[in-house]
Amino acid sequence: MTVLYLEDIAVGQKYGSGRARVDAEEIKAFAAEFDPQPFHLDEEAAKGSFFRGLAASGWHTAALTMRLLVTGEFKPAGGVIGAGNEISWTRPVRPGDVLRVESEVLEVRPSKSRPEQGLVKMRSTTFNQKDEPVQVLVANLVVPRRRSSSEALSNA
Amino acid sequence: MTVLYLEDIAVGQKYGSGRARVDAEEIKAFAAEFDPQPFHLDEEAAKGSFFRGLAASGWHTAALTMRLLVTGEFKPAGGVIGAGNEISWTRPVRPGDVLRVESEVLEVRPSKSRPEQGLVKMRSTTFNQKDEPVQVLVANLVVPRRRSSSEALSNA
Repeated sequence: MTVLYLEDIAVGQKYGSGRARVDAEEIKAFAAEFDPQPFHLDEEAAKGSFFRGLAASGWHTAALTMRLLVTGEFKPAGGVIGAGNEISWTRPVRPGDVLRVESEVLEVRPSKSRPEQGLVKMRSTTFNQKDEPVQVLVANLVVPRRRSSSEALSNA
Repeated sequence: MTVLYLEDIAVGQKYGSGRARVDAEEIKAFAAEFDPQPFHLDEEAAKGSFFRGLAASGWHTAALTMRLLVTGEFKPAGGVIGAGNEISWTRPVRPGDVLRVESEVLEVRPSKSRPEQGLVKMRSTTFNQKDEPVQVLVANLVVPRRRSSSEALSNA
C-alpha cells in the first residue's frame, strides 16, 4: 500500500472504504459508555423520541467513519490526523445498517508556518446500504510533504 | 433536575460538567475499535509520531465530551441532539488526563420550518486537569419549545 505525501494529493481525487455493519447491541454498548440517552439505549423509549426508533449516537457514526477512513484507500504518510472538522448528521443510523465512506479532496495547501507539512481539506460522506448519506464530515487533515533530496542528504 | 425548553435558554448562559479520567488502556481500546493508528495504540510507536507520545483519538475525546455533556448541567427537554458541529482538537489528550467540559450558549433561535422547536448554538470546550483546552466543539442543538396552553388544550 503506497502512502501519500502532500505532493501526491490533488483536488477532486476520490477514495473509497470497506463496509461496517452496525447492530443494535453495538449501538447500545457505545451509547451506554459515551452517550447514555434513551433513544440510543432502548427500542421502546426511542419510539416516542425525536428519532422515532433506536438510532446510533452521532459520535458512534463518527467513530465508525474514522475506522472506515483509517482502513480505507486514503493512506497519508504519518496517518490520518485531523486538525479540525465540520460534521453533520443527515439521517439516523439504524440497527442493521451497513455503512461505507466516500471521500473527495476539496483543497490542498502547503503550511506557511510549517514547511514540512500541509493541510488537505477532504469531504467524507458516510452512506448507508440504501446509498443515503447519514453523515457528512469535512476534515482538515495534516499531511507531510515529501522531503526534497537535499533535505534528505542533510539529515542523512 | 429541571429540563430546559427553548424559552429557558439565553445567550451567555454557562453549564458545567463532571470529570472523566482517561487511562492508557482506554485510549488503546477505543483506538483498536475505531481509530487503529500506531500513535493511539502503542507508546513506543507514538514517540516518533506527530503526537510525540501516546494520545487519545480525537473521536475518543469527542465521545467522552458527549458523556460529560449528557451527564452535565445542561438538560434540554428531549435530550442532547446535535444537528451539526464544528470540532477542533487543540492539544493531545494523554494517559492520566482528567477532562471536564464548560459550555456557553452562543445563539438561540426558533425554527422557521418547525415551530415546535428551535436551534441552540453552544460552544463546549473540553479542558484537561491543567485547564488547557484539548477540544472545542461548537454544536447546533435541536431543542423543543414549550407548548403554549392553547396548544396543550387543543391536543388534550
